[in-house]
Amino acid sequence: MDSETGRPQTEYGKTPRTERGRRTLRKLLDAAALEFGEHGFHEASITGITRRAGTALGSFYTYFDSKDEIFRALVRDLSGGVRDAVKETHDPDAASLEQERQALTSFLRFAREHKEIYRIIDEAEFVDPASFRAHYENTASRMFARLKEGADKGELREDLSEAHAWAIMGMNVFLGLRYAVWSDDRKAMDIAEVASSILREGIAATGRD
Amino acid sequence: MDSETGRPQTEYGKTPRTERGRRTLRKLLDAAALEFGEHGFHEASITGITRRAGTALGSFYTYFDSKDEIFRALVRDLSGGVRDAVKETHDPDAASLEQERQALTSFLRFAREHKEIYRIIDEAEFVDPASFRAHYENTASRMFARLKEGADKGELREDLSEAHAWAIMGMNVFLGLRYAVWSDDRKAMDIAEVASSILREGIAATGRD
Repeated sequence: MDSETGRPQTEYGKTPRTERGRRTLRKLLDAAALEFGEHGFHEASITGITRRAGTALGSFYTYFDSKDEIFRALVRDLSGGVRDAVKETHDPDAASLEQERQALTSFLRFAREHKEIYRIIDEAEFVDPASFRAHYENTASRMFARLKEGADKGELREDLSEAHAWAIMGMNVFLGLRYAVWSDDRKAMDIAEVASSILREGIAATGRD
Repeated sequence: MDSETGRPQTEYGKTPRTERGRRTLRKLLDAAALEFGEHGFHEASITGITRRAGTALGSFYTYFDSKDEIFRALVRDLSGGVRDAVKETHDPDAASLEQERQALTSFLRFAREHKEIYRIIDEAEFVDPASFRAHYENTASRMFARLKEGADKGELREDLSEAHAWAIMGMNVFLGLRYAVWSDDRKAMDIAEVASSILREGIAATGRD
């Protein structure tokens, strides 16, 4: 998804010019998420995607040349979806630690609504390693930018580095795997509080450090 | 690997009875790690494994029925390898936060020596989902047991739950991906200090919380 326009995009410039085309592309990407999420890349098929999308096979080839190409577009689309879900609820005036708590809450909610995202992004490690890497590098960069901003405002530690962003991202990804994808009976807010409390005070007994 | 005996094991009781058999099995598992790590499950072949191991094809079938079976055995072996690497350097008398720092340092060193572990365990999500899940559930359980022990000793927060263990495990896994597998130019100890500082004090500016 393009964050400025909210429009779905393919990787190779085959952006639809009409509203109807945009809807078709959106349907294809949503169908691809279900098809790849359920069957995995190798077992998934283009006809499985168009059947789910309720579109003709010709519509598929209007936007994509191959199963590989829609998979790559889908990874970018889902990665953009994560970014946009966080962005939509982002409050630049909130305290830095609150911003991180909100970012995780939004991510957990997004993952619950798109449970297939883990399987697809994880499979990208094998099918499309560059997109896999880009997804995490971009996510970590955005988080690091927020951490630096927090440090500049004097709210966060000044020594925070990109490695801290990777650590916090890993925390969020694994909480999502366990408490959004594998089971989702606990409130997203309560799970976000687990991470938030670690970022706020660490795990040492109070008054001991 | 069996943690009591240090002997490699297969999943179905075909444990070698002789020292020579144990060496052959070990060679097959090490060769499988390289073969699956380099080619992925689908492209990897049994002959590729025996060629790397320098063993006859018959030796393979003494221990495994199929490529699937050695893959499953390998995931268990690597998962046990992570556990043993942490166990070997574990000092039960150390302070709890030091134990976690040491556990991460040992994990990072293990991951640097076995860079293929990420690709193999990640691919297990598709090839052998039960082993994938078991690996993380077992790792989180061991960590949670250490956290509870630390809380009992009064060193760690009393409200730490299994979700905190998942959060910390995620931190460690992503630091390993980024700083052990993708690049390893920074010292394992320095990367472990990143996570350790978060667990010690969180990320808020000093004196602000």
